[in-house]
Amino acid sequence: MTPRPAARPGGRSARVQQSVHEAVRALLEERGRDGLTVPLVAARAGVTPSTVYRRWGDLQELLGDVAVERLRPEGEPADLGGLREDLEHWAVAFLEEMSSTAGRSYIRDALAGDPDGANAGRCSAYAVEQIETLLARAEGRGEAVPALDVVLDHVVAPMMYRILFRPGLLDPQYARDLVLTVFYRFMPLP
Amino acid sequence: MTPRPAARPGGRSARVQQSVHEAVRALLEERGRDGLTVPLVAARAGVTPSTVYRRWGDLQELLGDVAVERLRPEGEPADLGGLREDLEHWAVAFLEEMSSTAGRSYIRDALAGDPDGANAGRCSAYAVEQIETLLARAEGRGEAVPALDVVLDHVVAPMMYRILFRPGLLDPQYARDLVLTVFYRFMPLP
Repeated sequence: MTPRPAARPGGRSARVQQSVHEAVRALLEERGRDGLTVPLVAARAGVTPSTVYRRWGDLQELLGDVAVERLRPEGEPADLGGLREDLEHWAVAFLEEMSSTAGRSYIRDALAGDPDGANAGRCSAYAVEQIETLLARAEGRGEAVPALDVVLDHVVAPMMYRILFRPGLLDPQYARDLVLTVFYRFMPLP
Repeated sequence: MTPRPAARPGGRSARVQQSVHEAVRALLEERGRDGLTVPLVAARAGVTPSTVYRRWGDLQELLGDVAVERLRPEGEPADLGGLREDLEHWAVAFLEEMSSTAGRSYIRDALAGDPDGANAGRCSAYAVEQIETLLARAEGRGEAVPALDVVLDHVVAPMMYRILFRPGLLDPQYARDLVLTVFYRFMPLP
């Protein structure tokens, strides 16, 4: 089940989402995952358990929703004046965030109990949005730019694969090398 | 907690692993994930619950271990006489298996509750083994071969990223195109 989006910002639906998310974050910090239950979260958020069940389905779905929110980027990616610098800066920051203990745990939560891939799709949409901003900015400067899918397949995907499946092979230079690979091997001919 | 490897094949440890894994698979088929508990699994396997807890820690760890076993490739990858054909054939089969409903669910189970990445690392090791076999075979034939990490970063990782984060963008041609990309853009100069 996909959490329904808030009907309108500031409405009751948005207020419920905010207080439930805050309750989950506070309880996770105080007592960790074990022993977390929907009734506990509901009590802390000041809503009924059935409100939580109706909107999120179960605890796993709720944890996934909270995790995805935490993976939402804060603001626009930095503008350093050139696409290669911008992409390197973004990729190094992405790798650092996602490969942290917290980042890995959010990604695992986002993937768990997500049979239709809705939560995972939201994570990917965040990356797409940031990369599209960088590519549009570079085009506006008259730079040659790779296709969005090239950046996803050959920069984002390798980082995420190592984060999830080959931990221990991660450092900022790896992110920079992947960006360099796109510039050396995947740029369209002028 | 990482499941301890069987002490020796055919020993008591291996027999326990086999009967517990069989019990999990049978119960998953009969009743699905919901309601599965360690005592139920233990009863079906003819062992005590404490045997299961001692070896696997909890249900999530056990499900992860069973999932990884199911992702283990059966036998050597096909030998079609040339690296490009061999890699294409392997990549198409990998994508088909991993992107199936069952495959996705095994991957999610392997990743869930795997804080040290041991289960995920075993999944990646299976792919490494198969690709190394193909590369060694091609080298034996005197072919030029890409580095193992190139195949992992630019063929396996993009497939896995789409399987997990961008479902709906998967078809056999995507797998073949990734292999082609390695041959066009990543081969060492002769």
